[in-house]
Formats: sequence, structure tokens, C-alpha cells
Amino acid sequence: MVVSLEKHVCHDKKAKVPDQQLVFGRTFTDHMFVADYTAGVGWHDLRIQPYQPLTLDPSAIVFHYGQTVFEGLKAYKSPNGMVRLFRPNLNFERMNESCQRMSMPAIDPEAMLESLIELIKIEKDWIPTAPGTSLYIRPFMIATEGYLGVAPSQKYKFMIILSPVGSYYKEGIAPVKILVENQYVRAVAGGTGTAKTAGNYAASLKAQEKATEEGYSQVMWLDGVERKYIEEVGSMNIFFKIDGKVVTPALNGSILDGITRRSIIDMLRYWEVPVIERRISMEEIREAHRTGKLEEAWGTGTAAVISPIGEFKWQNELFYVNNGQAGELSSRLYDTLTGIQSGQLPDPFGWTIEF
Amino acid sequence: MVVSLEKHVCHDKKAKVPDQQLVFGRTFTDHMFVADYTAGVGWHDLRIQPYQPLTLDPSAIVFHYGQTVFEGLKAYKSPNGMVRLFRPNLNFERMNESCQRMSMPAIDPEAMLESLIELIKIEKDWIPTAPGTSLYIRPFMIATEGYLGVAPSQKYKFMIILSPVGSYYKEGIAPVKILVENQYVRAVAGGTGTAKTAGNYAASLKAQEKATEEGYSQVMWLDGVERKYIEEVGSMNIFFKIDGKVVTPALNGSILDGITRRSIIDMLRYWEVPVIERRISMEEIREAHRTGKLEEAWGTGTAAVISPIGEFKWQNELFYVNNGQAGELSSRLYDTLTGIQSGQLPDPFGWTIEF
Repeated sequence: MVVSLEKHVCHDKKAKVPDQQLVFGRTFTDHMFVADYTAGVGWHDLRIQPYQPLTLDPSAIVFHYGQTVFEGLKAYKSPNGMVRLFRPNLNFERMNESCQRMSMPAIDPEAMLESLIELIKIEKDWIPTAPGTSLYIRPFMIATEGYLGVAPSQKYKFMIILSPVGSYYKEGIAPVKILVENQYVRAVAGGTGTAKTAGNYAASLKAQEKATEEGYSQVMWLDGVERKYIEEVGSMNIFFKIDGKVVTPALNGSILDGITRRSIIDMLRYWEVPVIERRISMEEIREAHRTGKLEEAWGTGTAAVISPIGEFKWQNELFYVNNGQAGELSSRLYDTLTGIQSGQLPDPFGWTIEF
Repeated sequence: MVVSLEKHVCHDKKAKVPDQQLVFGRTFTDHMFVADYTAGVGWHDLRIQPYQPLTLDPSAIVFHYGQTVFEGLKAYKSPNGMVRLFRPNLNFERMNESCQRMSMPAIDPEAMLESLIELIKIEKDWIPTAPGTSLYIRPFMIATEGYLGVAPSQKYKFMIILSPVGSYYKEGIAPVKILVENQYVRAVAGGTGTAKTAGNYAASLKAQEKATEEGYSQVMWLDGVERKYIEEVGSMNIFFKIDGKVVTPALNGSILDGITRRSIIDMLRYWEVPVIERRISMEEIREAHRTGKLEEAWGTGTAAVISPIGEFKWQNELFYVNNGQAGELSSRLYDTLTGIQSGQLPDPFGWTIEF
């Protein structure tokens, strides 16, 4: 162990929620990891402690100026009883990129991964085992200095909390209906779109509300400059299969560099399916739909892994994809990736770690 | 009194900081105002209580998805000993507009103003009296529900905290040097730029750091679409005096509708100085500078009121304004507006309230 980690284990354990009753992000385990940062000192007091409320001054910078970053990943229990993580190093490395944009201090990815593993070892009985369930891991960092000046905080807390989550698809992988958003914008190059920071998600709520009211489950974001090019879908990256080839928006300075996105690209290349990262306009999707070449569409993200898209609404037009059914390639990607993540299938990429 | 307001007054009062030692946003008074919101119930438990830390679950939405809005205004002690507020109704009305954008519940502006007045009455000894000092008022609302799903919170806290602040200009009104930002973007139409929400401020920190490193005190933001048109300066609105006329960027969907901005426009019209709200490009500023028509430039905001600009750096060009000195009109605006706010001058606009 490279880090000096204090452990305060509690004896009063919470009752576990049965796997079938688990939802997303409502149940938390008995312990959490916390580290404090003070300018001039660095990170200190790394500790595992009972899950408990945070106590912050009302003037803490996080409440006023939103200086915060987060990550999301999942732990699974393998068939062999080991705990399995999927490319966790990429999450801690991406967190440092987010911190860079938000003028926040870097963490040591290795030490944080080691601390996460120690935390999960203590909480391993919280990992659900029913198909599709997992232990969702939320590392996050917040600015805690009490100061109303608009300036980077001199103090931060980095924390990891754990939440057992239910299956995203209760009744098999099901396609979603997407509303293409023309009024609101998620992010623009030069802004914070590539960082996993609070403000991007706050900005998305209004459009999501509007989509829900219209009976759509997610929003598809267009670029903020020309309002023509496809960016993301809800808080997922997006892929299309057009005329046998897979295309996904290139990382352009406003799109999140998704870890599921990267893994899907790698898997497609391994399978020798052509995959191209480039700019994609809504006009092109309309044309592909009109000519019958829009074969599949899906979102990618940690929560859903693969979310097939069955319908788009753009202005007043409706585009159905694959008759509103999950496509063959989406389903194969979902089965393979969740199989690798949960340990049901071999991992030819060396993406998973077990302990 | 229309609101039912509980008061828990503390007996252990903090020592006051001498007026000359006051800075911005570091000292807080003995009490704060708090109200809670629960979906389906509305706002409840309005109370004045001792200033104290907030206790929130680590999964509270504010820490992860930044659902938060705030306001800023100032109380002064009039020469007649009364407390004076400047257009406070506009702050609570604007907060509701911010809440609308951020999918947060509306407040009752009248009830909140009444609660603010009750709070200030208890804290009136905290209002500093030295020239240029004031009691800064920070109303803010944060999402407090513990939930990791990206969705509007079902619970909120609205709070008002008070901070005695020193004079913005310790040695008379002094011009600042501004770096025109070409890489980072504050906001774009369709985003959250018109809302006073945390994410806009978090997004600004990196550019501000870069400006500070280059010896500039603030950043000037260009539009995120064409990177040509002037938006704001730091967290202030901006005005130029060109060839005898005042121009300021029109409210375009990405600029904050500043209360000082509005007041300056009204004062200029009252003085019969021509003032135009329209799009202004950096090219136009360069040209006005080249032909000697760029007479003055200043930022407007609650903290500085008027902040004259003595120098711009755009790419590799330097533009000096009025030989780096505060201009006649900027100074007159500053003297008149701070005179009205503090009660040193009559208020022909009916902008102030006293109690």
C-alpha cells in the first residue's frame, strides 16, 4: 500500500436492500472514503470512515460557484466471488483532466484507486449479485473554503461514496425515444463540456424536463454554435450505424470523453466493424433515415452501458430506427461489454481488475 | 408581516472586525435566514437562526449536479442612521428567473424581502460605516436531496447570509487592466449565462487564473459562437463611451441582466446621455481606439459598482483607454450611484428603501 490510510469501521451496519428493490442512486453503503486538501499542504488525512453527513460553512465555494468534479464507475461480483472493476484508472485520470479545467488540485490516481479498493473490500457484502445489478462508485471533489470571492478554493474534499444499484433494464434491453433539443445547449467549445463538472448537469435539467413532458426519455444535444451537429444524448455519448458503418461525434472540445465510448470504439475495431469519429449533422441523420440507411443508434454511458434508440423527434419530424427495436449490433455490444464487466465473459482487452 | 418567521437569536455574539480591516466575503454576521422546500409541500420553516454550518448528505444534488442559484446586494447605513437597500425587489425577481432556468422552485419575492429586512434589523450593528464599506447580502438556494440521478431535486434550502465588506477601492476609484479571452467561453445562448447559477462562475475560474498570471485583473468574455462580440467583463456587465455615445452589449441570451447595468442605463437616460444596447465587436473597439474615439470603458456590478477600465489586451494588441485613467463619466456614475445607495445623495429614481 503506497498510501497512508486511516480506517474507522462502524459496527452499526445498515440493513441491505434486496437486489430486486434496488433503484439508482438512493441507497448508500456503511462507509465512505474522504481526503482533505489544503493549499500549501496538499492532500492529507486520507481515511475510510462511517458514511455520514458533511458539515460545511454556508459560504463554502461549492454552494455559490460550483467548483466541483465527479466520476462514475461500477464494481461487480464475478462468478468466482472476486470483486471486478472496469478500467478504473481511466476514471481517476479523467478526474484530473476535469480538475485541470476547473482550477482544482490534481489527485494521485494510483493512491485513489488503492483507497477505492480498500473501501470496496470493507463494503464487499454490499455488491448486489442479481443480473444487471452492480455497486455504483461515485468519486467526487468539492470546494470547501468559506469565501464569497470568485476565486479557486484553497480547500477541497475528495470523497468516494458507494451505492448498490438495480438493473437499468428491468425487462431486457429496451430502446428509448429521444427528443432533439433546439432551444437549450449543453456546452460549447471553450466552456466546460469536456469536464465532468456539476454545471454541465445543472444546465441539462430544463431540457430534460421539457422532453419528459413531451413523452421522450432523453434529450439529444446539438452544438451550441450552428445548432446542426450532434453532440451527446442526455448524459451519454451517441453512436449511429449507417449503411454498415458506425459513426460517433468526434471529441470536439464540448463532448465528454466517455470511457464506455472509448471501449465501444475499441471493441468495434477488434471485431473489424468500421467505426469513424467525425462531425455528424442532423441533416445527415434525416437523409440516412429517408434512404433506409439509418440501421441503428445507441447511447453509451456507465449507468446504462448501451442504450438503444428507437425513435428521434427533430422539430416536427419523427425518425424511427430499426422499427423501434434494439438493433443486432447494439445488443451484441451490450451483451459483450456487460459480460466483460461482470466477469461472465473473458476479457481479451485486459480492461478489468479483480481483487 | 405576511410571513410566519421564527427567530432564534443567539447571545454569544462574535467580535466585529474593524471597518478598515474588512475585505470581501470573509466575515459573516451572527445570524442567517433559512427556509426549506419540499416538493408537494412548498416552502416551510422560515426562520432566522444563529449562523452555523450546514449539514448535508454527501449525495446531495448540489455537490454533484450544481443545482443552485444566488444573488448579491448591499445594505448601507444612511447618514440618518437608517438602513438602506438598493432595488432589493429586483434581486428576488431575478432569482426567480434563475430558478426557472435551473428547474428550481420559485420563492415569494415579497416574503423573502420581508425576511431579509427582519434579518438585517437583528444584525444592524454589523453594517460598517466607513466610506465605501457596506453589508453584502448573499441570498442563495441549493438542491439538498440525497440522490445521484440527474433530475431536479425534490428538496431545497434557501438561505441569506450577511458579510460586512470593505471598500472596493482602498485608494480612490482606480482603473483595471483587462485581458480579452480568446480560448475560454463563459456562456452561449441556450446555456445558463442569463441565470445567476454556480456553473457560470466555476467555468470562469481558469480564464481568470490565466489573466492573473499575465498581470491582468479581469477577463473580458467574447461570444461563444463567433468569438467576435463582447459579452461581459469578469463577473460584471461592460459599457463603452465611443464618440460621445454610451454603448453596452444587448441582452442576447448569454449575458446576465445586471441590476447595476439597468440602473446605469436609467441614470444615463435621465442625464440625457445617449445610451444604446446593441452587439459590439472587438473589431469596433479596435477601430474606435485607432481613431481616438474610444473615450471610456467600465464594468458594472454589485461589488465594485463601477470599475473603470484603463487597458485592454486583445491577442497581441494593447488598447489604452483615457490614458489609463478613470474617465469623467465613469467617475460621475460611480459618485452618483454610490451616493444614492449610501444615502449621501438624494434618490430621484425611488430606487432605495429605508427602515
